[in-house]
Amino acid sequence: MVQYEQTVDSAFLALADPTRRAVLERLGAGSASISELAAPFGMSLTGMRKHVALLEQARLVRTEKVGRVRTCTLVPYAFEGISTWLQRLERFAQVVERTKGER
Amino acid sequence: MVQYEQTVDSAFLALADPTRRAVLERLGAGSASISELAAPFGMSLTGMRKHVALLEQARLVRTEKVGRVRTCTLVPYAFEGISTWLQRLERFAQVVERTKGER
Repeated sequence: MVQYEQTVDSAFLALADPTRRAVLERLGAGSASISELAAPFGMSLTGMRKHVALLEQARLVRTEKVGRVRTCTLVPYAFEGISTWLQRLERFAQVVERTKGER
Repeated sequence: MVQYEQTVDSAFLALADPTRRAVLERLGAGSASISELAAPFGMSLTGMRKHVALLEQARLVRTEKVGRVRTCTLVPYAFEGISTWLQRLERFAQVVERTKGER
């Protein structure tokens, strides 16, 4: 349970940055190397490696090194748990809003 | 756009803490005062006020003070944008996974 909570913490922390969210969007179109990810941001490879390392620790992205190229891919089902939880909160928020006038 | 990104950053940051996620779950059952939120965690009112302030800055919770009691409520539609975005990423992740073998 503690480990699950830590994974969720690190997933939300990883998502709290616009560059990392843009990287995830880019990976949604298919796997990419670190340099392919860095190019549109005009970012150094070192800078992008740090962002990717955080996404990898949060288990949202996995990487595989073949020769000198590290390829990054979205982890399937990584977003399912938290998006389902947020949808459930959203339904609750709307119910709370609707029942407010009834008390 | 920058302001939107900052709101999304602060929403994900606010979600990256198990106590704050538990507070959101509790508020899903209906509005609650700071002391009602603090009690199950054995937390001081000051500690809970800080968590609630972060949730309020992130626009996930709103509070209203009547007399000496501050009541906290989930903000409807606050979770909709980010849960829709995460669901879309999840669909992309599954497509990337399926097409990997086809290259």
